[in-house]
Amino acid sequence: MITGINHIGIAVKSLEDHIPFYRDVLNLQFLGIENVPDQKIRLAMFKAGDIQIELLEPVSPDSTINKYIENKGEGLHHIAYQSDNIENDIEDLIEKNISMIDEKPRKGAHDTKIAFIHPKSSGKVLTEICQIDG
Amino acid sequence: MITGINHIGIAVKSLEDHIPFYRDVLNLQFLGIENVPDQKIRLAMFKAGDIQIELLEPVSPDSTINKYIENKGEGLHHIAYQSDNIENDIEDLIEKNISMIDEKPRKGAHDTKIAFIHPKSSGKVLTEICQIDG
Repeated sequence: MITGINHIGIAVKSLEDHIPFYRDVLNLQFLGIENVPDQKIRLAMFKAGDIQIELLEPVSPDSTINKYIENKGEGLHHIAYQSDNIENDIEDLIEKNISMIDEKPRKGAHDTKIAFIHPKSSGKVLTEICQIDG
Repeated sequence: MITGINHIGIAVKSLEDHIPFYRDVLNLQFLGIENVPDQKIRLAMFKAGDIQIELLEPVSPDSTINKYIENKGEGLHHIAYQSDNIENDIEDLIEKNISMIDEKPRKGAHDTKIAFIHPKSSGKVLTEICQIDG
């Protein structure tokens, strides 16, 4: 079941160019930077209430984030909903004829299990479901 | 002070085409539809934990949402942060040399006071601050 929002992902060319707006202008709590080699990105994470804002910087030309920026430019990239049982939620989505990019959960950043819905099934809004692991 | 996220705005051509994904697929609580004549839009609102997802449909060709869709296509439009004192927060932003679209709060949907930051000051991510009025 979807219980809320886990994070909002924002595609950027350079973390360092965008960190000051979130940390020093909006005064969000800065949680640090994490490398996600699987996705060929670096993340900068901030806390806004119970939700994280995640800046996503590609570290390789073949990162999907790099391709996104080349096509659409920097900006809002995806919404990640919090799930209390990602396996059940994926099963429920598939039963509803939703196309999944990930039909099984995979490892996300900072101890999460994640799965992306194909944008053709979500009105072109890139949508992730996410469960905190453990 | 920014205390969290109030809502996420998604630009769509037709509310009716997109409501089923949020209501019936993700099973978010559907809060209804509201007309916002000032902005020449109709809103469909959903609850995801403490946060609202807002679908924004232009009802006039000169709505800014219509211009956005013509330029960028449907999709994620803006993040609205929750403020506990919007007048103070606008003053703080202006002191930090942030360009505001709204230098004074204006009336938003469902009893809120809102102000938009100019995208040139927020790394091209359209950013709203929002205080629940009352």
